[in-house]
Amino acid sequence: MTGDTVTGLLAEIAAIGADRVRGGYSRPVFSTAEHDLRAWYLAQAAKRGLRVDTDRNGVIWAWWPEGTGVDAAAAKAVVTGSHLDSVPGGGAFDGPLGVASALVAVDLLRARGVRPLCPFALAVFPEEEGSRFGVACLGSRLLTGTIDPDRARSLTDLNGDTFAEVAARNGLDPRFVGTDPESVARLGTFVELHVEQGRGLIDAQQSVGIGSAVLGHGRWRLSVSGEGNHAGTTLMADRKDPMVAAARLVVLVRDTARAHPQARATVGRLQPVPGGTNVIASRVDLWLDARHMDDAVTASVVAEIYAGAELIAAEEGCTVTLTEESLSATVHFDPALRDRLAVVLPGAPVLDTGAGHDAAILSGFVSTAMLFVRNPSGISHSPEEYVEDSDAEAGAAALADALQALLVPTDQGTVA
Amino acid sequence: MTGDTVTGLLAEIAAIGADRVRGGYSRPVFSTAEHDLRAWYLAQAAKRGLRVDTDRNGVIWAWWPEGTGVDAAAAKAVVTGSHLDSVPGGGAFDGPLGVASALVAVDLLRARGVRPLCPFALAVFPEEEGSRFGVACLGSRLLTGTIDPDRARSLTDLNGDTFAEVAARNGLDPRFVGTDPESVARLGTFVELHVEQGRGLIDAQQSVGIGSAVLGHGRWRLSVSGEGNHAGTTLMADRKDPMVAAARLVVLVRDTARAHPQARATVGRLQPVPGGTNVIASRVDLWLDARHMDDAVTASVVAEIYAGAELIAAEEGCTVTLTEESLSATVHFDPALRDRLAVVLPGAPVLDTGAGHDAAILSGFVSTAMLFVRNPSGISHSPEEYVEDSDAEAGAAALADALQALLVPTDQGTVA
Repeated sequence: MTGDTVTGLLAEIAAIGADRVRGGYSRPVFSTAEHDLRAWYLAQAAKRGLRVDTDRNGVIWAWWPEGTGVDAAAAKAVVTGSHLDSVPGGGAFDGPLGVASALVAVDLLRARGVRPLCPFALAVFPEEEGSRFGVACLGSRLLTGTIDPDRARSLTDLNGDTFAEVAARNGLDPRFVGTDPESVARLGTFVELHVEQGRGLIDAQQSVGIGSAVLGHGRWRLSVSGEGNHAGTTLMADRKDPMVAAARLVVLVRDTARAHPQARATVGRLQPVPGGTNVIASRVDLWLDARHMDDAVTASVVAEIYAGAELIAAEEGCTVTLTEESLSATVHFDPALRDRLAVVLPGAPVLDTGAGHDAAILSGFVSTAMLFVRNPSGISHSPEEYVEDSDAEAGAAALADALQALLVPTDQGTVA
Repeated sequence: MTGDTVTGLLAEIAAIGADRVRGGYSRPVFSTAEHDLRAWYLAQAAKRGLRVDTDRNGVIWAWWPEGTGVDAAAAKAVVTGSHLDSVPGGGAFDGPLGVASALVAVDLLRARGVRPLCPFALAVFPEEEGSRFGVACLGSRLLTGTIDPDRARSLTDLNGDTFAEVAARNGLDPRFVGTDPESVARLGTFVELHVEQGRGLIDAQQSVGIGSAVLGHGRWRLSVSGEGNHAGTTLMADRKDPMVAAARLVVLVRDTARAHPQARATVGRLQPVPGGTNVIASRVDLWLDARHMDDAVTASVVAEIYAGAELIAAEEGCTVTLTEESLSATVHFDPALRDRLAVVLPGAPVLDTGAGHDAAILSGFVSTAMLFVRNPSGISHSPEEYVEDSDAEAGAAALADALQALLVPTDQGTVA
């Protein structure tokens, strides 16, 4: 036992990547802040005697070193973990809560004298948010081969640096990023603990819930081109202003989502070019995030938006293009694993979520589950995201219970 | 005679500050590009034997050195000039055309053997566009005391650096920026040549026109605050999305301007905070540029926009604030000077303009005029801004004619 609590661990990293302009945290992958978090994590893994190995895609694996049961070498591994990167101005818990809870779960399992009957590891995935290179869950997508490595290498950040260049500056060999079948073949089960990003556990008045599904979601870039000109000399009637077209498109996105129950569609990022106060823009790029449990509805929402966008653009004398940047189908986690965790965690409600996670990527390859911890603000991707101390510790205990049932199946039903 | 042409001079600086991302030129004040332009200009002034002096506000004055007529020392100066800085992704002519034409006009006056009866200088004003520190015509405003120096010192650029800090790094003493009554008192007449930023000379089928007025204009920052949250987990009904409110506001700005004949209102700059694709913004800042010949109409347009913005914000569960960043009344240039130039340049149409200029600031202090040169695209603040070679040379010749009439009044009517 280290004596660490989840709250205590998160307090250790509370100053890293704090964003004084936006509030909250900005910890993009391979930034100074994310490097500092990795260094902190490696120290925590070392303190627990975990064997750390960073793979070709930058996923950090920390293996439980103790002798395990007779069939351990042949058995598939149980893995838990999450991510350390954040959206710009994000909260303190999205990612780090799962990492800190995994560390505390290791302590709890040791305190209970648990001896795993299979390999056991913690994992930290890079670029889960996609906030630097635009593709969410980039690390788990590369690991599982669900993104073409050439496409990944050519993704660019806001500075115009490619993922290949940035990866090379951060100790990876960009030639070797991509699918890693041997690593994936070792995995049997993945459980990711995450702060809830909605209000399900508030409504259920519970600290911890079990994930059942992740809504399908995607990102599309809409680029509206018009005619750049001087804001003072160009009569209103002579304009082809892509900002006006883009603005009408933002409203269309909201109205279209509202017309489809349970659909969500958002424009959170929008960039006029050139972006001067006294300049009519020549182009406006905006990004659409759209999600629904039914992938066909997501496709309909995007198709309706694009059709409407073409009409709006034409009315404003502009043109518009739509580019799909990522698309993930709705994921239903392994129902057998979900039911097993429901036995271990009686009373925990079963919830689906609109947020993407590395667990959703991995669920195509291994038996996967998620645990959610209550967020009393109901708000995430914002400094207002929050977790009560007692809920954080309850989450780590629930994770330990779930892992114990998976690592020592014969104990199932007898834990805690 | 140097043998230089306006086109030749502009070709010398065609590579400086070229913006490969936006197209056109990005030459913000005190950038490497603008420094390179200043260095080029100083070399051009030296080549012509002009006496250069950069004043406490960073205005570069280049004085005609030759012996002048008997009353020269007592007489007020005739000055011509423009600026070298640009908007982001601006055209090649906005500013530099006036500077290059002034240099060629010096050559033409010398070739004609003109001996000025009063002091004569070229001037280059810094930060005309306000593209770095947000206040247009910052140099001429400081010179004439039409901006409070404390306010100027505290203006910040996108990096958060203040004008005082940047000025200090560029050879100015920020304690001494501000009104310079002795410099202003030396000035008698200012003539600025500028590329036309509208279609007046296209319609009139003339190369050169005479300016009569500059539309009143101002800049306001609208800041819409809502509730940042996760784009995937937050139901449409639960949102307070400032991006939707801001988008409706952009449309309102356009509709309000359209309702007032000859009014122009533009949103060319808009920034969501934090600006992530999968994040509902917590705040959106947008900048309003509004202009009209009648200052009361400009005020009405802004008041109507703000009233509508408050309604829209409330409907979206958001709040909005409006901050005036700059405001300039409509300027009518000296009618006596305008009529004098009309005699020197018979057939040149008299035009007003929606674009702000240092000439408009100076017109409150000295007799001021502008010359416009035809822009066959009718487009400005864009890479598409253009001037035909023959029009550029015609502009420099017209400027020389105007200056000759002012420098040697007895010659008036006999030039060229």
